Amino acid sequence: MIAEILCVGTELLLGDIVNTNSSWLAKELADLGVSVYRHIVIGDNKQRLKEAFETALNRSDVILCTGGLGPTQDDISKEALAEACGRKLVRNEQAAQWIKSRYIDKGFALTENNWRQANFPEGATPLFNPFGTAPGCQLELAEKVIFLMPGPPVEMKPMFAGYIKPWIQARNHIVLKSRVLRITGLGESAAEDRVADIVASQNNPTIAPYAQYGEVIFRITARADSEQQALNLIEPVELEMRKRFGLNIYGADDACLEGVVVELLEKNLLTISCAESCTGGLVTARLVNIPGVSTVLKEGIVAYSNEAKITRLNVNPETIKKFGAVSAEVAAEMAEGIAQTSNSSLGISTTGIAGPEGGTLEKPVGLVYIGLFFKGKVSTKELKLFNRSRDNIRKRATLAVLDLVRRTILG
Amino acid sequence: MIAEILCVGTELLLGDIVNTNSSWLAKELADLGVSVYRHIVIGDNKQRLKEAFETALNRSDVILCTGGLGPTQDDISKEALAEACGRKLVRNEQAAQWIKSRYIDKGFALTENNWRQANFPEGATPLFNPFGTAPGCQLELAEKVIFLMPGPPVEMKPMFAGYIKPWIQARNHIVLKSRVLRITGLGESAAEDRVADIVASQNNPTIAPYAQYGEVIFRITARADSEQQALNLIEPVELEMRKRFGLNIYGADDACLEGVVVELLEKNLLTISCAESCTGGLVTARLVNIPGVSTVLKEGIVAYSNEAKITRLNVNPETIKKFGAVSAEVAAEMAEGIAQTSNSSLGISTTGIAGPEGGTLEKPVGLVYIGLFFKGKVSTKELKLFNRSRDNIRKRATLAVLDLVRRTILG
Repeated sequence: MIAEILCVGTELLLGDIVNTNSSWLAKELADLGVSVYRHIVIGDNKQRLKEAFETALNRSDVILCTGGLGPTQDDISKEALAEACGRKLVRNEQAAQWIKSRYIDKGFALTENNWRQANFPEGATPLFNPFGTAPGCQLELAEKVIFLMPGPPVEMKPMFAGYIKPWIQARNHIVLKSRVLRITGLGESAAEDRVADIVASQNNPTIAPYAQYGEVIFRITARADSEQQALNLIEPVELEMRKRFGLNIYGADDACLEGVVVELLEKNLLTISCAESCTGGLVTARLVNIPGVSTVLKEGIVAYSNEAKITRLNVNPETIKKFGAVSAEVAAEMAEGIAQTSNSSLGISTTGIAGPEGGTLEKPVGLVYIGLFFKGKVSTKELKLFNRSRDNIRKRATLAVLDLVRRTILG
Repeated sequence: MIAEILCVGTELLLGDIVNTNSSWLAKELADLGVSVYRHIVIGDNKQRLKEAFETALNRSDVILCTGGLGPTQDDISKEALAEACGRKLVRNEQAAQWIKSRYIDKGFALTENNWRQANFPEGATPLFNPFGTAPGCQLELAEKVIFLMPGPPVEMKPMFAGYIKPWIQARNHIVLKSRVLRITGLGESAAEDRVADIVASQNNPTIAPYAQYGEVIFRITARADSEQQALNLIEPVELEMRKRFGLNIYGADDACLEGVVVELLEKNLLTISCAESCTGGLVTARLVNIPGVSTVLKEGIVAYSNEAKITRLNVNPETIKKFGAVSAEVAAEMAEGIAQTSNSSLGISTTGIAGPEGGTLEKPVGLVYIGLFFKGKVSTKELKLFNRSRDNIRKRATLAVLDLVRRTILG
């Protein structure tokens, strides 16, 4: 089964937004054992989009198209597809009713343009979209199938997972299974070095490393006739890698560090509160990503000013005077202060110089202190995140403090 | 001048890395007045890459290709290009010397494979690469030109800036200038309706709308012989759009809502503090995105538990009992409480049901209240963000509260 990914939108073509749909879909298709040979990006131009559909229909079995389903005049994916396969656009009454109710739900007025979203190439089945107003559709043509999905990732991903993935699974019998191991606390080349011999000696499963924002990820992928066979191929490789990386592996597959932390807190009946300066709420916001976090998260305080550090967190003004707000000593008092004033089992803190201004020779941009109070003791850690952007420094400090919580609870 | 971007690499095709080269190059080319009609991603497969070159040569004037220039056997961009245009691969002695010195510089041993990097399609000019070992090249064919660049962005970008951009500037005299207007508080189709007549009557400048996360963006793009002429074409259209959208336009070009809010606070010598429940720190974290925010942001409190709402923000326990934690009344007390306990000019609050669990018939997932205390008065707003993911609800609530601050300060 050969697939082609076609992403439509002038905003993609002009580079105003990065095309993350292609890579997300490509990964999903690889896991389903589908071969993807091409990704194409086309603007909101009917003639060129029509040609792209024609070419794709000649060389691929499955065409996954995202974008161009909105209500506006430059949303022309359905028109271009209809022309490419010589079909008329016809109104689907079920889709029209659905659109009407969606707009009423959201309290928006329906305009003439919205009704265009109820038209589909003749023979197509609408795919409903729980997260937006643009229905997608599926059109089968002899041995080929075309799926049109909305462009926004929050709408596209659930549509793929809900309709398209099961459709492919029912038809494609090669199984590709992946296990992703997620690593913190090691750089990419150090991590790669540690397993270089395993990577070199494998071709089924294959092992691919990649790095993102302070994490290193290894994807172990096996190809087999059944899921069980694929899992059997993965297992010994995974065990060996787990042995080599130990506590550096924080989770597998779709695990995220904040999810692992929340689970550990829940399992150990612990509560946490956060005192953030340079991360400015990112640590708390990542914890709140996890549904049900309210049982373990008591509060977060962004104490950006010295005044807030003193009045909210009981930091001693003398400590700030003596060591500066960006210091291990202040991080320690912030962590203890938040744990005690909020009556939480753990208190964490961050204070640092996120830049781009505010650095000195002694305390350059990228210097961050994190603190953790737990069981009557405070530990702190100095991070040297030099030569990085404000955003990168804040994200890495967030990761470091979440990882410190994880390692501390695990002992 | 019509260009096509061709990115080569199995890691792109499988989605292991997101293709940021395409969007970066597309933006550069747009600024140079070059029309990009297609981005293509192809794996390390010679036959398909050769076909992609042939097709691109038929329809585009400039082909920008990244990737496939490394020393390994699956780096085949030069071979595929040579076959596509019927040329031989020949060794370039200058390139061979350069490669030799680069490898010695980096302390690497030269392998047989490395010499492949000195071979180019006959007639091509090597482009040297100060940040890596793979030279690129430029091949001119009658009216067409092909540039091959290395795949890693840190190598590709300087090669584009150093060789290719000046080459294009010397030949292309059309200037493309864009103005982006950023709108909140209107859905995409409502926004488009308001300017449908202008959009329909324009072709230079063109006006393209797109929506992302609760914002609508209009890009006005003019094509002219000089920057000044292009700006003159944009100006009247921009003025008319500003008249129609009024306060719905929060900024232009690269402005972001949190940046606009911080600037307004600074200009009016105001301070702000945030009391967040369902947004869990996102509002504060967005404000902290802006360097120098410390002059206006006093503190943020994530009061996720009722206890924190009562002890940190002085919310009356009776109010929670009577109306529930998710209510306009509690949002109002949170906003007033944070402003007064932190001694800030403005206090903002969010409380809502972000889901996926915790919704009831009366208070479904997506119901959010935001509050703002300013000059002794509290205002609140009810948001009905139904049928959305946890992440989407929290991001839209964040946007809504930042926008409420903006509109309130502007009066």
